[in-house]
Amino acid sequence: MFIAKVIGKIVSTQKSEKLIGSKLLVIKELNEHKEFADNNALVAVDGVGAGIDDIVLVDWGDSLYENSKLSVDMAIVGIIDEIQLDQ
Amino acid sequence: MFIAKVIGKIVSTQKSEKLIGSKLLVIKELNEHKEFADNNALVAVDGVGAGIDDIVLVDWGDSLYENSKLSVDMAIVGIIDEIQLDQ
Amino acid sequence: MFIAKVIGKIVSTQKSEKLIGSKLLVIKELNEHKEFADNNALVAVDGVGAGIDDIVLVDWGDSLYENSKLSVDMAIVGIIDEIQLDQ
Amino acid sequence: MFIAKVIGKIVSTQKSEKLIGSKLLVIKELNEHKEFADNNALVAVDGVGAGIDDIVLVDWGDSLYENSKLSVDMAIVGIIDEIQLDQ
Amino acid sequence: MFIAKVIGKIVSTQKSEKLIGSKLLVIKELNEHKEFADNNALVAVDGVGAGIDDIVLVDWGDSLYENSKLSVDMAIVGIIDEIQLDQ
Repeated sequence: MFIAKVIGKIVSTQKSEKLIGSKLLVIKELNEHKEFADNNALVAVDGVGAGIDDIVLVDWGDSLYENSKLSVDMAIVGIIDEIQLDQ
Repeated sequence: MFIAKVIGKIVSTQKSEKLIGSKLLVIKELNEHKEFADNNALVAVDGVGAGIDDIVLVDWGDSLYENSKLSVDMAIVGIIDEIQLDQ
Repeated sequence: MFIAKVIGKIVSTQKSEKLIGSKLLVIKELNEHKEFADNNALVAVDGVGAGIDDIVLVDWGDSLYENSKLSVDMAIVGIIDEIQLDQ
Repeated sequence: MFIAKVIGKIVSTQKSEKLIGSKLLVIKELNEHKEFADNNALVAVDGVGAGIDDIVLVDWGDSLYENSKLSVDMAIVGIIDEIQLDQ
Repeated sequence: MFIAKVIGKIVSTQKSEKLIGSKLLVIKELNEHKEFADNNALVAVDGVGAGIDDIVLVDWGDSLYENSKLSVDMAIVGIIDEIQLDQ
């Protein structure tokens, strides 16, 4: 899983049947200090009610989805309240 | 999932039986402002009727395909109408 | 698998049902000399009782989880006592 | 999937039982103009009768293999006749 | 699959039950000329009797393991005798 910020959303009418009804959020990876990493934006299905500017936990691959029957490669699985770093 | 632009197509006569009948599109990743990222071109199977110059949503891995029985690692799963960014 | 150091933890109240009860640790990849790599921090579920400052072995993908029924893409699967390098 | 050129082959006598009888080709990723990308060489199992200097289509992950029962993470699934780019 | 050199091993007493009895080798990716790539070291389970300084073939993902019941994301699946490059 990685840490990301929700920066927008995707509007798509012509799409796979499996994505109908899913909220498609544009996310960008953050480092542990909540600064943007150099990576490009990605698109994840929202599974927890996340919205613009939320700091979220993103899971990819199909392990999670085998259980949740979410047929996609990337999903928001948590809204992060706090990142507690050791100092 | 990531955002990409369709830039071409692949012609291949000698190929895996599983790919026969599939439209093989050449795609290049875009950032959230629809500018090309530095990544190389990739090849995805079209699942939604996409064509040259379309901005598309690309899914990879096998989670989606477990449902759709598409036996490939990368597929176009949506045509993007708009990327709405928070400002 | 890769080598990483546990540098913190994630606090998240609104999360996927599958993550409830899991300890979510923030990790950073190390090279073979236990120096931080340039990669960003990631988040892994703890499966072995790891804590802050531990050097750990991280597994990703779903192969391990098919057995352990851990529905996540990244997990700590070992605490590293020593990295013995050939010299 | 990505585009690659076959640049050599691997000779290995001591190998996993699952690889016995497979042709192990060394490949290097190409960009859409058939120029070598900066990535390192990889090794793929040949599934379509590819040989040295062929431009090929490479699939990775396990989606394809669930069908073809090819127990490996990377396979050549097509020989590319032409890459038609939009101009 | 990729080409790598075995450079060490991991000692870990507190680890996942699935890893007990497995030899955990530290590997570093090589390019086709057997020179070290810039990537960090990784850790793979040995499946073929590999040892320090061996040039090996590494498979990742879960396709191979669905057959071999090896519950890990990265395994050494062959010892490379020779890399024959086209010249």
